[in-house]
Amino acid sequence: MSDEKAFLTAYRAKDYPRPSVAVDLVILTIIDAQLRVLLVKRKEHPFKGQWALPGGFVRVGEGPIEQGEDLDEAARRELKEETGLDPERVYLEQLFTFGKAGRDPRMRVITVAYYALVRPDLAPFVKAGGDASDVEWFDVAVLSKLKLGFDHEEIVEMALSRIRGKLEYTNIAFDLVPATFTIPELRHVHGVVLGKPMDPGNFRRSFNRWLAEGRLEVAPGKRITSSKPAAVYRFKRARD
Amino acid sequence: MSDEKAFLTAYRAKDYPRPSVAVDLVILTIIDAQLRVLLVKRKEHPFKGQWALPGGFVRVGEGPIEQGEDLDEAARRELKEETGLDPERVYLEQLFTFGKAGRDPRMRVITVAYYALVRPDLAPFVKAGGDASDVEWFDVAVLSKLKLGFDHEEIVEMALSRIRGKLEYTNIAFDLVPATFTIPELRHVHGVVLGKPMDPGNFRRSFNRWLAEGRLEVAPGKRITSSKPAAVYRFKRARD
Repeated sequence: MSDEKAFLTAYRAKDYPRPSVAVDLVILTIIDAQLRVLLVKRKEHPFKGQWALPGGFVRVGEGPIEQGEDLDEAARRELKEETGLDPERVYLEQLFTFGKAGRDPRMRVITVAYYALVRPDLAPFVKAGGDASDVEWFDVAVLSKLKLGFDHEEIVEMALSRIRGKLEYTNIAFDLVPATFTIPELRHVHGVVLGKPMDPGNFRRSFNRWLAEGRLEVAPGKRITSSKPAAVYRFKRARD
Repeated sequence: MSDEKAFLTAYRAKDYPRPSVAVDLVILTIIDAQLRVLLVKRKEHPFKGQWALPGGFVRVGEGPIEQGEDLDEAARRELKEETGLDPERVYLEQLFTFGKAGRDPRMRVITVAYYALVRPDLAPFVKAGGDASDVEWFDVAVLSKLKLGFDHEEIVEMALSRIRGKLEYTNIAFDLVPATFTIPELRHVHGVVLGKPMDPGNFRRSFNRWLAEGRLEVAPGKRITSSKPAAVYRFKRARD
């Protein structure tokens, strides 16, 4: 046995204290002109009966180390299991890893948080499963009244801050708007995500810059509005 | 004993397979007009004698679950132990968590990667410690020739991409420039980070926008240059 093989064999025989690793999902959409987050009601302790983010433990597996589940894979599996949403039709991105001791009363749990954006037309098709007894879209403005389990309110806050920061310089709104939209429609979506109405003049200037940068383009056809027919636009690419 | 307490007691007695959790550090600075990353030579298997990112396991602890080390704490400790740098004088931010099965030949290891920016005047004061037999700043342009251990080249690539993306819309260059700088000096730093020279006209337009947005401001005094005295500027705030 080589020096390295002997080292690995000896190493694996040792038993270090290890944390559990989970994924948690901040799933967002726009319904009724509100930015909403998808929460599940917990079937089990801890925080039984309270609302919390969907999520669960990464399956490490007991077989060869090459066979365990990857983090993205765990996030997609939990999305499907607990909310019924199709991971193929949802934009999912890693957000941040939270690992403070004591954040879970059971044991040391380090959680890799993801955020997901769901197209508003798919939002009604959610269904509780797994450890969730119920699933519901909540206005992000009322979260603090819900007393979420764990540090999940902090995780939602970080997702909101990430998405709000990205609105200005990425295509992140792509999944929250229809395929084509007028300028006031996109301004409205930005206002909903930012939680405050956008000034039309300032928004128009940003809009023109995105057009000049090639992030947006004019789409065919005009939209009938209450005043004169309005030009419609679309994102050139999905996200970034 | 309450229903919840009984649940927790039973839960903790179970033994699930758990991964190990580590932190890895992508530490960057500018030396001799090159963007450089700090690597350590590994004293132990696996990848013994090869260059890799500084890092190590998060100390979970065997005591009450409230007492283990937090992720940021582990990152600061490893920074100090393996490189001798003072965590108080270095900008450190969580980057991304990598957890693919098989990325470490010893066992399943999920690593929370951080990136750090070191002021060029502090860069010479590094000293190998812990599991590192040597420590050295390498030009990021030659990394692929070094054959780093683990998936560390992929981790460095993600750090570079994150920092390059942030140059345009944040104060991330704050830690890579002197306290005050001329426009060509800042342009030069951007060129080094991006790995290609910046067009002076385009850069001047971006610079004027940052001034208008209040990210930069004029600093007192003028700098003697080879031509006429040049205005100097500074960032209004450290980072964002």
